[in-house]
Amino acid sequence: MDESLLIHSASHSYPVWIEDGIRHHTAELVRKAVPDYTKVFIIADENVGKLYIEDILSSFPAESRPDYTLLPAGEMSKSFAEYERLITECLQQGLDRKSVILAFGGGVTGDIAGFTAATYMRGIPFIQIPTTLLAHDSSVGGKTGINHPGAKNMVGAFHPPHGVIYDPEMLRTLPPEEWRSGYAEVVKHALISDKPFLNWLMENVQDLSLLQGERLKELLKKSIQVKADVVQKDERESGIRAYLNFGHTLGHALESYAGYGKLTHGEAVASGMIFAVRLSRAELNAALPENELRKYLASLGYRLDLEKEAEAVKLIQLMKKDKKTAGGRINFVLLEEVGRPVLKRAAEETLLHLLENEVAK
Amino acid sequence: MDESLLIHSASHSYPVWIEDGIRHHTAELVRKAVPDYTKVFIIADENVGKLYIEDILSSFPAESRPDYTLLPAGEMSKSFAEYERLITECLQQGLDRKSVILAFGGGVTGDIAGFTAATYMRGIPFIQIPTTLLAHDSSVGGKTGINHPGAKNMVGAFHPPHGVIYDPEMLRTLPPEEWRSGYAEVVKHALISDKPFLNWLMENVQDLSLLQGERLKELLKKSIQVKADVVQKDERESGIRAYLNFGHTLGHALESYAGYGKLTHGEAVASGMIFAVRLSRAELNAALPENELRKYLASLGYRLDLEKEAEAVKLIQLMKKDKKTAGGRINFVLLEEVGRPVLKRAAEETLLHLLENEVAK
Repeated sequence: MDESLLIHSASHSYPVWIEDGIRHHTAELVRKAVPDYTKVFIIADENVGKLYIEDILSSFPAESRPDYTLLPAGEMSKSFAEYERLITECLQQGLDRKSVILAFGGGVTGDIAGFTAATYMRGIPFIQIPTTLLAHDSSVGGKTGINHPGAKNMVGAFHPPHGVIYDPEMLRTLPPEEWRSGYAEVVKHALISDKPFLNWLMENVQDLSLLQGERLKELLKKSIQVKADVVQKDERESGIRAYLNFGHTLGHALESYAGYGKLTHGEAVASGMIFAVRLSRAELNAALPENELRKYLASLGYRLDLEKEAEAVKLIQLMKKDKKTAGGRINFVLLEEVGRPVLKRAAEETLLHLLENEVAK
Repeated sequence: MDESLLIHSASHSYPVWIEDGIRHHTAELVRKAVPDYTKVFIIADENVGKLYIEDILSSFPAESRPDYTLLPAGEMSKSFAEYERLITECLQQGLDRKSVILAFGGGVTGDIAGFTAATYMRGIPFIQIPTTLLAHDSSVGGKTGINHPGAKNMVGAFHPPHGVIYDPEMLRTLPPEEWRSGYAEVVKHALISDKPFLNWLMENVQDLSLLQGERLKELLKKSIQVKADVVQKDERESGIRAYLNFGHTLGHALESYAGYGKLTHGEAVASGMIFAVRLSRAELNAALPENELRKYLASLGYRLDLEKEAEAVKLIQLMKKDKKTAGGRINFVLLEEVGRPVLKRAAEETLLHLLENEVAK
C-alpha cells in the first residue's frame, strides 16, 4: 500500500496513509514504518477501543498480537498520573528502544501516548492511528504533551511519529460536534494557505454529516499537506509554525475561560478565527471575506462570537498566559489576505475594543 | 570571558566555561549563553545550595535576582513527584519559552532540571552549573531524565544545555568517594580515546585529594572534549555514542544489584571497566594494560571486582534489562586497544564464565 503523503521531520521522514478500511492492515503498515521493531504496544482511547480494537489486533498474526491499554476518554486523561501509569505499562511490557507504541484514538490519545513514546528511554518510535477528524491535525507535526492542572499542554516534547495510519471509516461514528471541532482546523488550513482550497470547501462541504469517501479523503490529504508544509519549514515553532495558531490565541482563551471540556476545541477556534479576521481588517485593512465566512461557518452549525459571552479583561489575561506569549506580549496571527498570514503584536486597547464592541453582521 | 570549549549539538552550539571562581560571574555568562532570555529560575541541590547559592545570586543585580528551589540531595529526587513539583514551580514563576533554568548541583540535579527544561512548554533553555567531578561528564551531551521506581533513567529526553558554567573551586568540598566516582569517567574517556591521555593521568594524578588548579582544569577540558567529540558525531546514541558506555554495562548492573545509592556510580564503573578489559582480552585477544590499570585504580582507593560479591546470573538478568539492550541481546563496548573501542554482542556463557571465575592478578 502506497502512502498518501510523506512528511519530513528534522530526524526522519514518515508516511501518512489515508484509506477507508486501512485499519485492517495495521500490522503490515507498522512493519513498513519501523521495519526492525521488536514489539508493539497499543495505547487506545476507551471509546474507540470498544469499537475498533479488534480490527487492529486481528491484523496481526495470532502469535504476535500486541497488548494494549485503554485510556479514559477526555482531556482529563492527559495527566501526570496517567503518564506515569503508561510509562509503568511500557516497562512491564518490556518495551525496548526499538519497540513501537501505537496511539489509537483522538488528539488526547495521540498527545499522551506520543509524550510517553517521546520520553520512555529518551524516545522510542510511535505511530498515530487517529480516530477523529480533529486528530488529522494533531497527528502530524510532532507535538506531544500532557496538561498541568489549569495549564493545558504545558508539558511536552517534539517527537514526530514514525507513521500515521488514517482510516476515515472510523470517523463515521463521530457525533456532529466532533465533526465541527475537527473541521475548524481544515478551514484554518485553507485560510492561512490557499484561497482556491477555501473556495472548494465552501462549495463542496455544506453538510459535515455527508462528508465521506473520496471527497473526505481528498480534504484530509489537502489539509494535512498544508500542516506538513508549515512544520517541515519550522518544526520547533521558532517562526512560521506560529501561523498554525491562526484563530487559536483567542480560541485557547475561550476554551480556558469556559473550563476545559465545556467547548470543543474547534468551536472555540471558529470564534477565534472570525475574531482574527476582524482584527486583520482593523489592523491591516485586509480585504477578507468576513461575512461569507461567518455565514458558511454558521450554516455548518458553529456558534460564533463566543467572546461576547465572556469578560474581555479575563480573556486578555488568559491570552497573556499562553505558551506562545513571551515577555507578556500578545502576538496574533493575522491575514493580509486569504493565504497570507503574518505575525503581529496586538495592542491591548485594540483587543479590548474589538472584544467588547458589537460585531458588524 | 572566553569559553574553554564550544560544543556542537544538532540544534545549537553551546559554550563550556571552566575557571576557578567563575560562579561569581554567573549572571554575565547566562546572558552570553542566552542573550534574549526573559527570566532565570534556579534548581539547586540542597547541599550545594547551602554552600554556594549566595555566590550565584549575588552575581545578578539586586533588582533582578532570580528565585530558586532546593532539591533534596540524592538519586531519590529524580522521581515523578519531584518532576511534577518542579514543573509547577516553573508555572508559578511564570517562566515562558525564553526563560532559562539553571541546574545547580551534580548529576541528579542536572538530570531532573534538564528534563524539566526539556519538557516545560516542550522545551526551554537550561544551563548547567555542575558542582561535582562526576557531573563534568553528564553536563555535556544532552541526556536528561528521571527514574522510574526500580529502573534508573528510564524516562528522559535529549536536551542539550545552552551553556555549562564549571567552577572547579566548588569541587574542593567533595568527599573522597565523590572524587573517585567522577574520576572513573575521566579514566573511561582516556581508555576509549587516547593512550597518551591515559598515560598522562597515570603519571600526573596519583592522589585525587591533591587535584586542583591548572592540572584539574586541563584534565576537565580534555575529558569533556572526549565526551563532546563522541556526542557531536552521534547525539542520539544510534552508533558510536555507545562507546561512552564502556564499563557501564556491568557497572549499571552492579549499581542496581547493590541497590541504588549503595555504590557510587564511579565505583561500579571502575569494576565494570576492569571487567570490560578482561572481556576484551578474552574475546579480542586485545593487548591491554590490565594489571597496570588495576594497580592504578586500586592505588586511588577504588574497590575492584565487585562482581565477585554478586550472583552472576542476577547480574546477567540486570544487564539484559539495560536501556541499551534491544531484543534481549547484551552488547558490550570492548577495546581492541586503548583508544579503539568496538561494540560487540557478548555470549552469555562467556559472561558467566568471566563473572564467576577467579581474576588473574
